[in-house]
Amino acid sequence: MLKADLIEKFGLFDDYWTPRIIAELNDQFVKIAKLKGEFIWHNHENEDELFYIVKGSLLLKFRDRNNVKLNEGEMYVVPAGVNHLPVADEECWVMLIEPKSTEHTGSTITDQTVKVEDQKWI
Amino acid sequence: MLKADLIEKFGLFDDYWTPRIIAELNDQFVKIAKLKGEFIWHNHENEDELFYIVKGSLLLKFRDRNNVKLNEGEMYVVPAGVNHLPVADEECWVMLIEPKSTEHTGSTITDQTVKVEDQKWI
Repeated sequence: MLKADLIEKFGLFDDYWTPRIIAELNDQFVKIAKLKGEFIWHNHENEDELFYIVKGSLLLKFRDRNNVKLNEGEMYVVPAGVNHLPVADEECWVMLIEPKSTEHTGSTITDQTVKVEDQKWI
Repeated sequence: MLKADLIEKFGLFDDYWTPRIIAELNDQFVKIAKLKGEFIWHNHENEDELFYIVKGSLLLKFRDRNNVKLNEGEMYVVPAGVNHLPVADEECWVMLIEPKSTEHTGSTITDQTVKVEDQKWI
């Protein structure tokens, strides 16, 4: 691969809740996304998902544990099977790390779902 | 896990070339390390290794490809089996992502090697 400049990559797109792939390692993808507003409740049955906040802040709502508010420079791993709802009051830039097999919205399919095969490398 | 503040975690240690673990997901560890000087040539036979530069810059020397100079905010994945030599002229803060099984210096053991079981969570 070529090296990837994180901030430069964020400059290449503007749409929300539409992850782009910027690297892969050990059957995982490194993705980046811009988030704004409330997403949908979902879980990834078999895949842990790492959230790292590059800009802004993100609230992760949970049903089985306390909510987690992530600020710039903070990370959190949502374990496999755990229902979560990401909410960004203002635009938030996030880096995600998850297995290649991870479906965008788990088994919950909505208009916002972007299929794995439609998630683009940038 | 609790959320992890990347910069705060870097404040918890000062020694070079001694990775600390800050998160885990899908049988991978997220580690951080402070680097200064020249490390040793090594490879990880079966594990890809992601380098993300949090502060400073890092030169990755290779034998089978062009060297890669990584600056703050840039990432690069060293594929499994590829010999590499990290060199940091000035202090560099790096985040690493690699499988839990990854040996610090691959099959090359030196005084600088920190065994996987000796790498601490912070």
